Amino acid sequence: MPNAAVSTDDRSFLYGDGLFETLLALEGRVLWPELHLDRLMLGCERLGIPGQRAAAEELLASLEIGEPAAVLRLSLSRGSGPRGYAPPEFSEPVLRLTQHSAPALPADSRVDVVLSPVNVAAQPLLAGIKHCNRLEQVLAAQDARARGAGEALMTTGDGEVQCAISANVFAVSGRTLITPPVDRAGVAGTRRRLVLERLARQVGLDTEVTSLRVDRCRRADALILTNSVHGIRAVRRLDDTDFPGANDAVHALQGAYMQEVRRCLGS
Amino acid sequence: MPNAAVSTDDRSFLYGDGLFETLLALEGRVLWPELHLDRLMLGCERLGIPGQRAAAEELLASLEIGEPAAVLRLSLSRGSGPRGYAPPEFSEPVLRLTQHSAPALPADSRVDVVLSPVNVAAQPLLAGIKHCNRLEQVLAAQDARARGAGEALMTTGDGEVQCAISANVFAVSGRTLITPPVDRAGVAGTRRRLVLERLARQVGLDTEVTSLRVDRCRRADALILTNSVHGIRAVRRLDDTDFPGANDAVHALQGAYMQEVRRCLGS
Repeated sequence: MPNAAVSTDDRSFLYGDGLFETLLALEGRVLWPELHLDRLMLGCERLGIPGQRAAAEELLASLEIGEPAAVLRLSLSRGSGPRGYAPPEFSEPVLRLTQHSAPALPADSRVDVVLSPVNVAAQPLLAGIKHCNRLEQVLAAQDARARGAGEALMTTGDGEVQCAISANVFAVSGRTLITPPVDRAGVAGTRRRLVLERLARQVGLDTEVTSLRVDRCRRADALILTNSVHGIRAVRRLDDTDFPGANDAVHALQGAYMQEVRRCLGS
Repeated sequence: MPNAAVSTDDRSFLYGDGLFETLLALEGRVLWPELHLDRLMLGCERLGIPGQRAAAEELLASLEIGEPAAVLRLSLSRGSGPRGYAPPEFSEPVLRLTQHSAPALPADSRVDVVLSPVNVAAQPLLAGIKHCNRLEQVLAAQDARARGAGEALMTTGDGEVQCAISANVFAVSGRTLITPPVDRAGVAGTRRRLVLERLARQVGLDTEVTSLRVDRCRRADALILTNSVHGIRAVRRLDDTDFPGANDAVHALQGAYMQEVRRCLGS
């Protein structure tokens, strides 16, 4: 049953043995559910959890969304099981969907970012998928808040930027967008996918999925963070590096994104 | 309230943002609760969760243990919080305690082990503590079961053994016990601590906390796994390397352990 209380033998509670998606709903309509479900299914495959695509679609479609802008959390736990790490041979996954107010965006939606002292560990088996083992992000968020930063870049400790705490990172260099691959760490963001597969081309930008070092971020013309809740945000400052206020590539990308959003809403 | 149903905004459910302990209770008495609580408090310190030592002690003491041998899972979640990785500034952690049957030990308690294809990622911030981000162990347990193995050694991918799936590893070389440090990965096991601080000395063995490579494990006189549920188990086979049936050091250690258990039980 969706949104049933979680029992103390739920494996998501016990071991973070589950997956989740964070979706934005505007005017009662969920944006790009198919991109979220694609990633959720990839996660199921990786973790050996039976896929629940149809059930998840149904659950999303059945939700009554009460607010003009809402954030949905769709959780997929492997389900209950006996004590111990080994999952039951036949698990009965449980979907849960909760609804939250969308955060108000400040008038200047640019964000101040720090380099996090919390590294993400390289773990190819879990990279790319949105699983529920998120202590690294919790620690990084705790640290960023203490320093007054809205977000933080996370590296694997070797100078390689992998992600922000809850966003993907793009560096703008001339007419090229550079973002790291998500095969060692990080999450394959739905908005990252939109940028790479659709938006960049629409506005005449090239894309490179390749190593993105911290020093390259500092020297970039602009830095962008993408996620489902905030869409495409420009970085105002990375530690003590200020980025200029206006960047044509960023504005074009944000415009293309808003157009896609409006298309989703059928308006 | 202990054992209250977990709500869908419990951070242990959302992000694995919590800690746990697995304790053995024999004849109605919990073994070494202080060692477990020491580690739990270390975890609280690392994650910035307010410590709950007195409450945890009380909860353990208040439990009516119905079986001659029971396994207890003590969970400490950071508690509820708003959506998003950043924990609430003032969290109200929740303790939960569940009781399970202790697994029956086979007559020959030696265990067949494989080298896991699932690596543990090096993450010093989370190493040593028993947190609820356990997907690596879940994947490794899934793989080990599929291969008919009772346990598996996990490395950081560089040949360095860090732990077994749910146990610490010791290699016996002559009169020396070698076990890896737990500052990059692995958990600081309560029985590991007993061996290092008490048991080895009692039976005249030296200990070395140092790098333990896979090839050294294969060449060892014996391999030992330790955890709270099974105590001290000898490895019978590691992949295709057989270990001889009797090893004086292992037997002496197991004897010393059983004596400590009896002391705990006051018998």
